[in-house]
Amino acid sequence: MKLIRNDKKILIVGLGLLGGSYAKALKKQGFHVSAIARRRETVDYALSRGLIDEGAAEPDEKLIREADIAVFALYPHVFIEWVEKYGALFKKGAFLTDVTGVKGAVVYKIQELLPEGVEFIAAHPMAGKEVYGVENADDSIFHGANYIVVPTEKNTPEGIELCEDLGRVLGFRDVSRLSPSKHDEMIAFLSQLTHCIAVALMCASDEPSLVRYTGDSFRDLTRIARINDLMWSELFMDNREALLREMDSFKNAFSELYDTVKRGDVPRMREMMRISTERRARFDKKGD
Amino acid sequence: MKLIRNDKKILIVGLGLLGGSYAKALKKQGFHVSAIARRRETVDYALSRGLIDEGAAEPDEKLIREADIAVFALYPHVFIEWVEKYGALFKKGAFLTDVTGVKGAVVYKIQELLPEGVEFIAAHPMAGKEVYGVENADDSIFHGANYIVVPTEKNTPEGIELCEDLGRVLGFRDVSRLSPSKHDEMIAFLSQLTHCIAVALMCASDEPSLVRYTGDSFRDLTRIARINDLMWSELFMDNREALLREMDSFKNAFSELYDTVKRGDVPRMREMMRISTERRARFDKKGD
Repeated sequence: MKLIRNDKKILIVGLGLLGGSYAKALKKQGFHVSAIARRRETVDYALSRGLIDEGAAEPDEKLIREADIAVFALYPHVFIEWVEKYGALFKKGAFLTDVTGVKGAVVYKIQELLPEGVEFIAAHPMAGKEVYGVENADDSIFHGANYIVVPTEKNTPEGIELCEDLGRVLGFRDVSRLSPSKHDEMIAFLSQLTHCIAVALMCASDEPSLVRYTGDSFRDLTRIARINDLMWSELFMDNREALLREMDSFKNAFSELYDTVKRGDVPRMREMMRISTERRARFDKKGD
Repeated sequence: MKLIRNDKKILIVGLGLLGGSYAKALKKQGFHVSAIARRRETVDYALSRGLIDEGAAEPDEKLIREADIAVFALYPHVFIEWVEKYGALFKKGAFLTDVTGVKGAVVYKIQELLPEGVEFIAAHPMAGKEVYGVENADDSIFHGANYIVVPTEKNTPEGIELCEDLGRVLGFRDVSRLSPSKHDEMIAFLSQLTHCIAVALMCASDEPSLVRYTGDSFRDLTRIARINDLMWSELFMDNREALLREMDSFKNAFSELYDTVKRGDVPRMREMMRISTERRARFDKKGD
């Protein structure tokens, strides 16, 4: 099965910002797109804007049975509960994928729950916006972003290839592969830890008068301090061990820098600054 | 003395990025601008690009004596040493100001060193770039930025007003006033602490393979991790007490968040995220 053949029916379960943006991109590419959302208004909105061909506000058996490919854009625990209840309805040969931001806590459970002949290949589209809902659906968020396929031993080469094709069809700049544990480690450091830092920084001071002096560096650093607490607390808990390890490393590095300031150890302070400068410079190679 | 009268001679001491950008802005406004820099090539470059009218690669007596206004754009300790050696050469009635990023450790010493009739009014132009040198001089960096005048009891209303005028003439968006201790506290939190966080984050992990997965949030958060270690270590040491207080507050907030993850305290974790979101939203009012 090659995704390039546009006769495939793609079902999207969950029409938030990401689900809606998937729908938009896939419709543009000529796929038949259906969706299952929680609220009727969401489905109506998506139909009225031409984001989907068909939709239902409940787990519609027909839509599930007809799907060649299904994309789950749900909170982790909702995703697992959904597959527990309705996973058996998928036809043999269907391919399932997702957009979940953590993998270890999700992928093995889902693969365990699905019937023989229905393959789940986890993926993480590293794209987003600080707004929510299908009304903000915007497939341009994929264009500069990374799409990571996260296979397990249960996946077939065909399934993995299909999932990678999907990333390319959606318009991601980079499509790559990671194991669930490597993925979760990377996410703990690059995404979850940075959100922890931004949240802690905002909680550290409540001085409204500071706002007028805020410069770009503070704004940049705290942009991600506006956070969906329901979703992120779940992602943190689902990746707890990896996140705690990264938080520990950061705490240690910050404490070391604190100690250099406290004891006036300028040589070591400068050395840490040089390490930082040198490492950050590597990131610029990909454009800054 | 009103700065608006463009017959004033302005001397800039130190022609780096900021000194050069001051020169550029002031020349555009029709002032006579001279400069003293450490290297001959710097002076020649500034002359050839029309950034200054006159310049010297040593503390030229004539330029110092003729200056109505002098702006110091030097490292803190170099600034203090310079005024110790040559401060007596300024004429009575001259006004001095600076661009130094810390105030308590500098302003009182400078005011002590200067002869009767020469007034120093400290200022902090909160503008910059991650590049250095007169070759990168760019007065547009002032346009969206804050300019803070930091007077002490020794300053005259006339001197303070002149210094504020200078901020407006340079093109800063906001001109405001803070005491040296309030300034240093604000800088410790909004600027120095954020640089500490970025440096610690880059020092916390050396995983080159992560670079390819880096998203915008990590890039934003670590942009300031490229840091001039000589300058910043000096600024940190000159503001050590205030910086340690802010680092302590952040350490405590980060540790609290760490503990919520460790013990699975989702309600408190979500509460911290909501506080963070609410506080960060205030910043957006000034445009984001």
